[in-house]
Amino acid sequence: MKDQYENYEALFQEIADIKYAAAVLQWDQETYLPPKGNDMRGRQISTLTETAHRLFTDEKTGALLEELIKDNQLNHRQRKNVELSFQDYKKNKKLDSTFVRKMSDAVNKSFHAWIKSRKENDFSIFQQPLQDLIILKRQEADYLGFDKHPYDALMNEYDKGLTVESTDRLFAELIPSLSILLDALNQQPQINNQFLHQHFDKNLQWKFGIELLKHIHFDFEAGRQDISEHPFTTNFNSQDVRVTTRIDENNLANMTWSCIHEGGHALYEQGLPANEYGLPLGEYCSLSIHESQSRLWENCIGRSLPFWKFHFPSLQQIFPKQLEGISVVDFYRGINKVIPSLIRTEADELTYHFHVMIRYEIEKKLIEGSINSKDIPAIWNEYYEKFLGIKVPDDKNGCLQDVHWSHGSFGYFATYSIGSLYAAQLWNTISKTNHQIDAEIASGNIHSVFQWLQKEIYPHGRYFTSEELCKNATGETLHAKYFIEYAQQKFKNIYGI
Amino acid sequence: MKDQYENYEALFQEIADIKYAAAVLQWDQETYLPPKGNDMRGRQISTLTETAHRLFTDEKTGALLEELIKDNQLNHRQRKNVELSFQDYKKNKKLDSTFVRKMSDAVNKSFHAWIKSRKENDFSIFQQPLQDLIILKRQEADYLGFDKHPYDALMNEYDKGLTVESTDRLFAELIPSLSILLDALNQQPQINNQFLHQHFDKNLQWKFGIELLKHIHFDFEAGRQDISEHPFTTNFNSQDVRVTTRIDENNLANMTWSCIHEGGHALYEQGLPANEYGLPLGEYCSLSIHESQSRLWENCIGRSLPFWKFHFPSLQQIFPKQLEGISVVDFYRGINKVIPSLIRTEADELTYHFHVMIRYEIEKKLIEGSINSKDIPAIWNEYYEKFLGIKVPDDKNGCLQDVHWSHGSFGYFATYSIGSLYAAQLWNTISKTNHQIDAEIASGNIHSVFQWLQKEIYPHGRYFTSEELCKNATGETLHAKYFIEYAQQKFKNIYGI
Repeated sequence: MKDQYENYEALFQEIADIKYAAAVLQWDQETYLPPKGNDMRGRQISTLTETAHRLFTDEKTGALLEELIKDNQLNHRQRKNVELSFQDYKKNKKLDSTFVRKMSDAVNKSFHAWIKSRKENDFSIFQQPLQDLIILKRQEADYLGFDKHPYDALMNEYDKGLTVESTDRLFAELIPSLSILLDALNQQPQINNQFLHQHFDKNLQWKFGIELLKHIHFDFEAGRQDISEHPFTTNFNSQDVRVTTRIDENNLANMTWSCIHEGGHALYEQGLPANEYGLPLGEYCSLSIHESQSRLWENCIGRSLPFWKFHFPSLQQIFPKQLEGISVVDFYRGINKVIPSLIRTEADELTYHFHVMIRYEIEKKLIEGSINSKDIPAIWNEYYEKFLGIKVPDDKNGCLQDVHWSHGSFGYFATYSIGSLYAAQLWNTISKTNHQIDAEIASGNIHSVFQWLQKEIYPHGRYFTSEELCKNATGETLHAKYFIEYAQQKFKNIYGI
Repeated sequence: MKDQYENYEALFQEIADIKYAAAVLQWDQETYLPPKGNDMRGRQISTLTETAHRLFTDEKTGALLEELIKDNQLNHRQRKNVELSFQDYKKNKKLDSTFVRKMSDAVNKSFHAWIKSRKENDFSIFQQPLQDLIILKRQEADYLGFDKHPYDALMNEYDKGLTVESTDRLFAELIPSLSILLDALNQQPQINNQFLHQHFDKNLQWKFGIELLKHIHFDFEAGRQDISEHPFTTNFNSQDVRVTTRIDENNLANMTWSCIHEGGHALYEQGLPANEYGLPLGEYCSLSIHESQSRLWENCIGRSLPFWKFHFPSLQQIFPKQLEGISVVDFYRGINKVIPSLIRTEADELTYHFHVMIRYEIEKKLIEGSINSKDIPAIWNEYYEKFLGIKVPDDKNGCLQDVHWSHGSFGYFATYSIGSLYAAQLWNTISKTNHQIDAEIASGNIHSVFQWLQKEIYPHGRYFTSEELCKNATGETLHAKYFIEYAQQKFKNIYGI
């Protein structure tokens, strides 16, 4: 049976080659593609995606996996690979090609409608294409199957085992506590962080971003950074992981934390086992765990006082005029200013969860059918007022701000919050295990964090689910309390409560 | 039968998508790939190449083409596409997969041997792997078939219809005339072009190169330029054509003419019919014609006095110190200095042909079996002394300088010379048709050249062979006399004869 496992490896690596080739074409599309190349690039990516999908869903693939699943000569890692591949295979076979094409057409229509709708600030353009897509997503949930709530089937695509029940429970604990904290902070004098909004030269920002990436152990021999409109991380194998950033010359924060955020994602990808290329154990655990890696670096470390005790002096050297008279504590407080706002991607670490929860609640209702896409603007605006106390002036700055729904990515948003909760819980364990961690980070040494992640997170690929990985690493399954405690301690201190 | 033509288009466009995806991965490999990504990139490119090849050589492809070839409803362009595709198909089927794999292994071995051999300046390392490859190339020629000389079969791969007979005839006319001219120039005082070998800032050179590309009508909306070790042009469709250049801060010529040369290739690719994507009529005619496009721009235009009458003033503004006291005529003479040298890629427009002819002669003998790879260094050195009057100090600067043989690219070199001959013949027609051409170019207007190429060369794809295309465009098949006359006139004038 050894031979069959080798055949399995060869086949899945071939599929990976084609999928990652599509990823290279996508990366190029976001970074260097000349404008007129866009149309043909679209079809080239589709052809690769379909070729990989055809290979993966071929009956021969199924037969090979079925044979291997009965093999009792496999070691535990091989067995896990085969089991996960077989699960993936069976899941893919649940969606026939007619349905996949229908979905792809619907996504295409709704994406273009969203672009137009957003540009013209007119939700009505998006409403029907979105509703058509929602109906298909509901059908997808039925095909994929679920125990309790159809939305479970969709969330499962991004984080295996994630359910409405567990997510409701997390938000039910998180949101009230954060509301109380937010109210308390609101009573305090607001922080002035105007110094972040001056002119910061593009090239100098770029160089500083590269230094930050190097500092957190991003391996530039196995990756690179480029510029794109929206920052992202992509990988073509663990030895070629690419991040992008954007630079706003009037806002230092934009580049700085997008760099650290994407860097966190990238460290995870660079740390995945290279010898499992193309196989499940060479892939990331879940979107929630991926997000925990970006948030851990971006927030728990990258917005901490120790981190800036080390980096602020060099930043001040780079921008002496802009940061004149600003102390490291001023800087630390400035970058952690909490203020309810309209746009998710610009939200602070605390109000961010409200943005996510609102989207989650709306998606859940859309998929269960208790509301229709035409109800979105009203509910959106109601929730923003209720939870964040702000009036949404128009849909462009409201329910049209995110691309996700137009892509059919229902079930995705929750992983942003859950990732942050995981990050806080991991960070709690790291801090408990190493009482010197603050001092180390303040001295520019992040080695022990990196080593811990190299042991607890990176090498496992998809061997464990998010919950299992978390339990192995922290001794417990996910609890919102770690984030709540972290947030209370950090922000009360910052706001002098 | 209409439907079958559409099926044919769809299939060949799918194959093109995969081939061009491989080209994107190759472009990335030469420009942006982080070093550790190299291994996996190699296998990803192989998978794509094999996938495209499998689709193309599938029996179903053959059956479809066979059916279409009998169809008399096709218009003349459709018919041509089908005929050329069927020829390609039958040619590909002549080489079975065992042979293709053998060849690919032999190339791999000889390429690595060449790298080592060159590094250690020791031809003996390369000798046996090269000989193994030559034996396979000879077998390939047998499989492909030929009338007179086995080398014809190999040249035919790069330029359909090119033969030893026709190439011998061209060189027999070209080389003696150029030898006489070279001797005459040698009697004259040599030109001093030291001013080209000063320090020229990288960023300023880059900007100047971009201006040159814009000037010759390279469409930056449908292409881009990047930096790579060896300049090249690649395309993923006619709306995405990419050139690369290299910049030597101690030699202005390197970047300048590589830019114009690759730009000439790129204009051709950008001008190919976009609506024939993936089909023969959307592809370039031959390597010879491709080279004619780069040489026309690089030499006939890019090393002409009118061209620099227009560009020299701005170049002088960019590098005022380096070009102080240099007149445009000094510059023109400097960039056209003729001097026999060791390295092909650094040769002037005139001695270049000797480098090519020597390689052609050696290849021909290797493939016919009248010499063996071990004889190469001696013949090489003998020919360099005989034709260029220079002693080759070592194989690194002699027969190990080019990558082509290690790649198995036998039959390729001649297209460099033939491309130059075509360029001169096209240029002759352009000049005869438009007596204002020099004045136009001197005033910065290259529109009429571009328009002529847009009519005579670009839109035809593979509709005509090189010879047919040349005859349609110039009224005659290829003659060496146009280059000879061009060279005599130009260089006698420059050297004051």
